[in-house]
Amino acid sequence: MRAKIVNIGDELLIGQTINTNAAWMGEQLDLLGIKVVSSIAIADTREAILEELESASKDAQVILITGGLGPTKDDITKHTLCEYFDSELILNEEVLEGIEEYFKSKGREMLQVNRDQALLPEKCEVLINTRGTASGMWFQKDGVIYVSMPGVPYEMRYLMIHEILPRLKAKSDGGIYHYTVKTIGVGESYLAEEIKEWENELRAEGLKLAYLPSPGIVKLRISGFGSSEKDVKDKVHSYADKLEELIPQYIFGYNKDQLSEIVGIKLLAKEKTLGICESCTGGYLSHLLTSVSGSSAYYEGSMVTYSNELKMRILGVKKETLEEYGAVSEPVVEEMVKGGLKAFGTDYTIAISGIAGPTGGTPDKPVGTVCIAVGSNDEIRTFTFLFGKSRERNIHMSAIYALNELRKMLDD
Amino acid sequence: MRAKIVNIGDELLIGQTINTNAAWMGEQLDLLGIKVVSSIAIADTREAILEELESASKDAQVILITGGLGPTKDDITKHTLCEYFDSELILNEEVLEGIEEYFKSKGREMLQVNRDQALLPEKCEVLINTRGTASGMWFQKDGVIYVSMPGVPYEMRYLMIHEILPRLKAKSDGGIYHYTVKTIGVGESYLAEEIKEWENELRAEGLKLAYLPSPGIVKLRISGFGSSEKDVKDKVHSYADKLEELIPQYIFGYNKDQLSEIVGIKLLAKEKTLGICESCTGGYLSHLLTSVSGSSAYYEGSMVTYSNELKMRILGVKKETLEEYGAVSEPVVEEMVKGGLKAFGTDYTIAISGIAGPTGGTPDKPVGTVCIAVGSNDEIRTFTFLFGKSRERNIHMSAIYALNELRKMLDD
Repeated sequence: MRAKIVNIGDELLIGQTINTNAAWMGEQLDLLGIKVVSSIAIADTREAILEELESASKDAQVILITGGLGPTKDDITKHTLCEYFDSELILNEEVLEGIEEYFKSKGREMLQVNRDQALLPEKCEVLINTRGTASGMWFQKDGVIYVSMPGVPYEMRYLMIHEILPRLKAKSDGGIYHYTVKTIGVGESYLAEEIKEWENELRAEGLKLAYLPSPGIVKLRISGFGSSEKDVKDKVHSYADKLEELIPQYIFGYNKDQLSEIVGIKLLAKEKTLGICESCTGGYLSHLLTSVSGSSAYYEGSMVTYSNELKMRILGVKKETLEEYGAVSEPVVEEMVKGGLKAFGTDYTIAISGIAGPTGGTPDKPVGTVCIAVGSNDEIRTFTFLFGKSRERNIHMSAIYALNELRKMLDD
Repeated sequence: MRAKIVNIGDELLIGQTINTNAAWMGEQLDLLGIKVVSSIAIADTREAILEELESASKDAQVILITGGLGPTKDDITKHTLCEYFDSELILNEEVLEGIEEYFKSKGREMLQVNRDQALLPEKCEVLINTRGTASGMWFQKDGVIYVSMPGVPYEMRYLMIHEILPRLKAKSDGGIYHYTVKTIGVGESYLAEEIKEWENELRAEGLKLAYLPSPGIVKLRISGFGSSEKDVKDKVHSYADKLEELIPQYIFGYNKDQLSEIVGIKLLAKEKTLGICESCTGGYLSHLLTSVSGSSAYYEGSMVTYSNELKMRILGVKKETLEEYGAVSEPVVEEMVKGGLKAFGTDYTIAISGIAGPTGGTPDKPVGTVCIAVGSNDEIRTFTFLFGKSRERNIHMSAIYALNELRKMLDD
């Protein structure tokens, strides 16, 4: 099956909104084995919509449309769809009840324009949207499926997950299975070199592999397609197992696993607590940890000791150590960990000190030099990394590499 | 002038990459007064590119193309452009020298495929790309301009800013001027109501206004178009001045100003220092402050006291206060500020304690309740806000509202 994505909205054309819908929808379709031919953003006008409906149907069997379904007069997708499919608007009682309930729950006054959202084309199958007041609409004409849905990501995703993707899956052939292995601390090209033979074997077996890189992390998505879902799943997992044997040192999780969650789960399982001493990351590592709901069960807090004065006063780093080795040094982060363990009274502490840039580098310690210590009262491990020139990236890399070292220590 | 944007790359269709290029390019064109008709993402194939070149030229005078210019054999934009414009590849000596220099500076070996990037269509004007090895190409045919550039955002933006936008600006008519006023602490619809008359007057004068909302912040972009750049600029500024008189309490900056930078500039000007005590924001406010290069001149550090135990031990919050009022209360954040002023030895301290969610709410203090205190040894101000249900949004809103209260205190 071939699909086209059509996103309606002037805000996409003038850059007021980044089109994240197209990427998310494309990924979901690809995961079902449906080929995405193009995704286009067009203006909120009758002419642009009619032209695109006409041209899109030439080369695709599925056309997914977002946007232009709000209650204001600018939103004209529904009327244009009626025109294109030669259909009339009729009142949908179920949708009207839903809209009334929606306004009641929000305690807001319901206007005629809101009530009119229950008027829907008679020639479509209505897809109930419990997240908002604009319904999804499923049309079929000359063997082509057209689905219209709201552009609000939260509503679009609801309709895709609960209504549209299951219907499309039923129409696509055979079993599909995806499994993602998440690695950290190894670059994409180096990783590709290390797993070359495994990758060739996997491809020879008809499986697909996608490298999905982000700073510090490379996700490997293994996909299988075939007539039996069970066979496909078994085959994908047998290759995931082989990968696990090949590069255990880089793998930190699977599918939706987040590094900060994985570390949290390990701490919880061992009933251990954590405190953080940050310098160059300036609170970012603490932010990553506390973005996980429930982190207060193992996470005590953080000292962001940006100044040397605070490193001494609060963490007990010695003046001589700072003078002899400099703030960005393994002896200093080691003393920060010791001070942190005492101040927090936690089982584990992480300390980070580095030169995030863009200024502050020296020939000896260029921008991107970061020292990390991870430890408990039994053992402290120290590391020095050289990341790059971007401040934002250096902060991010320092935080996830530090988390990764704690993960490894918890595993040992 | 009407423009279309064509982004080539399978990674855009399967959602591996979010198409940020389309949004950025659309915004730049809109700022020049050029109407963006559509932006389309298509596959990396000869057929898809040829089809799109043919159809795009029907309805636009400018077609901006990104992607498919790398050295690997998958990248076929250049060859397809040659076919479409009936042109031959010829060696460009200037580009070859640039590529040689690029590899020398990176200390990497140069392969034949890299050398081949200096082969460019004879029928185009070559746009020199100092950020990478793929050149920009400017074609004209039957009154339509086609520009091809790399898909790497950092390289695309370089070529757009230095080569393409200036040429397009020269072709568009008259003066264009934009000025953005940044507000905080007021919702978009409430703001629109407050400035309705001013907005009507502005529109009657032929100026344009765009509301650009993000959590907690609404940017108002005033745009003027006319024959004289000076007149346009004067008119835009006269309306910005009127707005300043109308809603001074909401305005924190202009154009590229960031709230964390504005606060930093004010602290520097007064030679004052800042420390932070965070609970529910978990390091995020500290992260915002330290994302600004040079922040170490006024920012001392942060205590992320996630547990009550730490609030007492490190910040000296009294057990009785915690028991009587709860951790999320104005008396507790006031004690946190006092403790922070002492522990950091700074002139100002901010304290935040709240229920970020999704759990932890009570009927009295639902998820989204956040207490903030801002103060010095002379004065402490406390606030209670009720944000919403999203953990991520609550963390973000708490941090920027706290910064905004410090900004106001520094202004008084």
